[in-house]
Amino acid sequence: MTPELQELFTFLAFPSVSTDSKHKQDVLSCANWLIEKLSGMGLSTELHETPGHPIVIARNEHSPDKKTVLIYGHYDVQPADPLALWDTPPFAPEIRDGKIYARGATDNKGQMLAHILGIEKTLKEKGKLPVNIILLFEGEEEIGSPNLAPFLEKHKQDLACDIIAISDTGMVAPNTGTLGYGLRGIACAEVKITGPARDLHSGLFGGAVANPATAVAQLVASLHLPDGTVAIDGFYDEVRPLEDWEREMWAKVPGVKDEDFLEVTGSPALFGEPNYSSAERTWARPTAEVNGIGGGYQGEGSKTVLPAEAFVKLSLRLVPDQEPQVILQKLKTHLEKHCPPGVNIEVELGHDGKPYACDPHSDFGKAAQRALKATFPGEPMLIREGGSIPIVQAFQDILGTDTLLLGLALADAQIHSPNENFPIQNFEAGIRLNQALLEELAK
Amino acid sequence: MTPELQELFTFLAFPSVSTDSKHKQDVLSCANWLIEKLSGMGLSTELHETPGHPIVIARNEHSPDKKTVLIYGHYDVQPADPLALWDTPPFAPEIRDGKIYARGATDNKGQMLAHILGIEKTLKEKGKLPVNIILLFEGEEEIGSPNLAPFLEKHKQDLACDIIAISDTGMVAPNTGTLGYGLRGIACAEVKITGPARDLHSGLFGGAVANPATAVAQLVASLHLPDGTVAIDGFYDEVRPLEDWEREMWAKVPGVKDEDFLEVTGSPALFGEPNYSSAERTWARPTAEVNGIGGGYQGEGSKTVLPAEAFVKLSLRLVPDQEPQVILQKLKTHLEKHCPPGVNIEVELGHDGKPYACDPHSDFGKAAQRALKATFPGEPMLIREGGSIPIVQAFQDILGTDTLLLGLALADAQIHSPNENFPIQNFEAGIRLNQALLEELAK
Repeated sequence: MTPELQELFTFLAFPSVSTDSKHKQDVLSCANWLIEKLSGMGLSTELHETPGHPIVIARNEHSPDKKTVLIYGHYDVQPADPLALWDTPPFAPEIRDGKIYARGATDNKGQMLAHILGIEKTLKEKGKLPVNIILLFEGEEEIGSPNLAPFLEKHKQDLACDIIAISDTGMVAPNTGTLGYGLRGIACAEVKITGPARDLHSGLFGGAVANPATAVAQLVASLHLPDGTVAIDGFYDEVRPLEDWEREMWAKVPGVKDEDFLEVTGSPALFGEPNYSSAERTWARPTAEVNGIGGGYQGEGSKTVLPAEAFVKLSLRLVPDQEPQVILQKLKTHLEKHCPPGVNIEVELGHDGKPYACDPHSDFGKAAQRALKATFPGEPMLIREGGSIPIVQAFQDILGTDTLLLGLALADAQIHSPNENFPIQNFEAGIRLNQALLEELAK
Repeated sequence: MTPELQELFTFLAFPSVSTDSKHKQDVLSCANWLIEKLSGMGLSTELHETPGHPIVIARNEHSPDKKTVLIYGHYDVQPADPLALWDTPPFAPEIRDGKIYARGATDNKGQMLAHILGIEKTLKEKGKLPVNIILLFEGEEEIGSPNLAPFLEKHKQDLACDIIAISDTGMVAPNTGTLGYGLRGIACAEVKITGPARDLHSGLFGGAVANPATAVAQLVASLHLPDGTVAIDGFYDEVRPLEDWEREMWAKVPGVKDEDFLEVTGSPALFGEPNYSSAERTWARPTAEVNGIGGGYQGEGSKTVLPAEAFVKLSLRLVPDQEPQVILQKLKTHLEKHCPPGVNIEVELGHDGKPYACDPHSDFGKAAQRALKATFPGEPMLIREGGSIPIVQAFQDILGTDTLLLGLALADAQIHSPNENFPIQNFEAGIRLNQALLEELAK
């Protein structure tokens, strides 16, 4: 076993489960191991206590004539349950068929340590790094990073940087360089429709008063045109159109063809905005989804009640350049305008997050592409993702810096599940990728 | 206290709660008391055991040249809980302000005993009744009459009659003769919409596949036009139009003005089919109501899930001459036709019951009106009701006989609630009503 793999095994052996208070000491031990490792590489380190688990910071000696690169990772992991479904114990790493099996192997210890070892290798080979580096490793990503944003605010000056790199997203296919440059935002709302003062007998009163469950359904139906387009007035006003190169690029991305979406979702058919592929629909087009709807009798059989109230929980996924607060107001206006007669409506606006996109053809974007090309065969795949990563948004909002997403996680890595794994090939490629990346970003 | 009230107090003192097995003996004792009472009046009696509580039958000596009248009632009562909310114990009747307070006072012992005592009085006064009488008293009405229909089937011949009378419905206002001649029917269905094989992440997949919760809402929205009219093709084909006399009559009925519906329901506004009053909408027009809708996340806050399935429970209220099975097929056709793309639909048809109406201007109807007029001041109110009474349907289906609903229950009688009560005035009027009714029906 290589010394690099040996170190990964040591890192993986810490059961640094952030959500479980009985692992608090393990999370701290893992942070201390990192401090020791990073100090040993000649970096200056800081362990910052938070109300939860500590944040680890490491830097080389910064020079004003060099670019500053911040690399983010997280050393906490998901719980390993259900333990019985693991072929080997989650915190006793094992190699089978070229893959490292352990909790955190891909998410995120394997990807994160590759960056550390890449830096170590460059330092050994060249005596110094081509850039000013800031390593920021948190221990609370799996519980929603509650202390990261306050930390960024507090240390805004010290963390100022030119570009951020994260390896904690997907690689579209084995051995395929993947650069993520966009994420969808989110805007949530809950609607409550109230009608009669109490549940009514649907025989005695049905027909004379509006039914809140019917009304909530009519309201939801008003959100879309039959072709799947969102019908909220002005919803698409700020949507950045897909560029030709994006459509061409995404058509080449493996694993996200329409038939892949059909298979992965198990839906009877695909359905969405006309004239877009599934990847385009999920990566670059906004949506209005019902996350939950309810009202009246929920049990088995029938109960002839005319319910007093009904609700719907909505979340909109947003894309550049939609502004969540603007869209939420448009949604509220739409809902109030389309509320059927005879009922009252309450719209409660919920949490939101801005959509994110950086330019993969900017100088930093091109540098990342060259690093990927140097590390993996073929052209790198430039993708967006449909979900939201609040950390990226926090970096953008607080530090004002773009993030390059250099994902090494394969679709079958079983992250958050039993038998999580990380190919040795990806680990080794990650080390080389870090070396190439810092070199290219320095240019 | 009059001997009649004394007998009602005795009848009310039996805790004949049909749903509670620890009262099984009380229900039986109550039935035996009835047998004793009716036998003592010179009627021939039968106590029929059923798998549940017994059915009591009593008859006078029948003569082929007389009309045969069946009077139905039930001697079982609702549970008295919550006991703490009763001002006096539910099975220790007490008179306050001219009202008898006890469980079953209105529903149905008071109304039922009035018929018995009316017959007794006529027998005492005239030595015989003007009609052949069949008294049918069951002990399972409050648990859905599970053994009544089989009993009717089995004793069809013995129970053959010209007309049925029941006093177990509402009197529209104090001292106001009320004849019910119609009820709505019902037809139930449950719809299940399925989409993806499992709940999906609404960020990763939202936009690419149809959302079953959205689809179920769109399906529900397809059931009505914006003005509240049901949009199912052919839904109104067999609906018997309201007659002019009905609209004129109902406009005079106290307690069912639009403002009364608004107050009783506590709805922010009335809403329903244009050009009908609330009474007309609930008594003579069919509906399509959502009794329950659900799908996706039901808890507090938000969860960004794209649900795998959603459901809606529907019940249609039907009016003459709609056929439940025909309407259910039309509903099914509508739902399948309007199911949005990208999801699968399963429609499960549920229970149904035919609408009911008899002619209040038939010979028997006129006789009932004369009896009401002889008993109460002013013209009797001719009404329908919005709910369904399965017993009336069973009589119609099995015996082929119409039912006259001569209600003595006031809106504030607190039936099924603590402090149920029955005005002495209604009890005494009920006795006179029975005497007049049998006399008029005999003509």
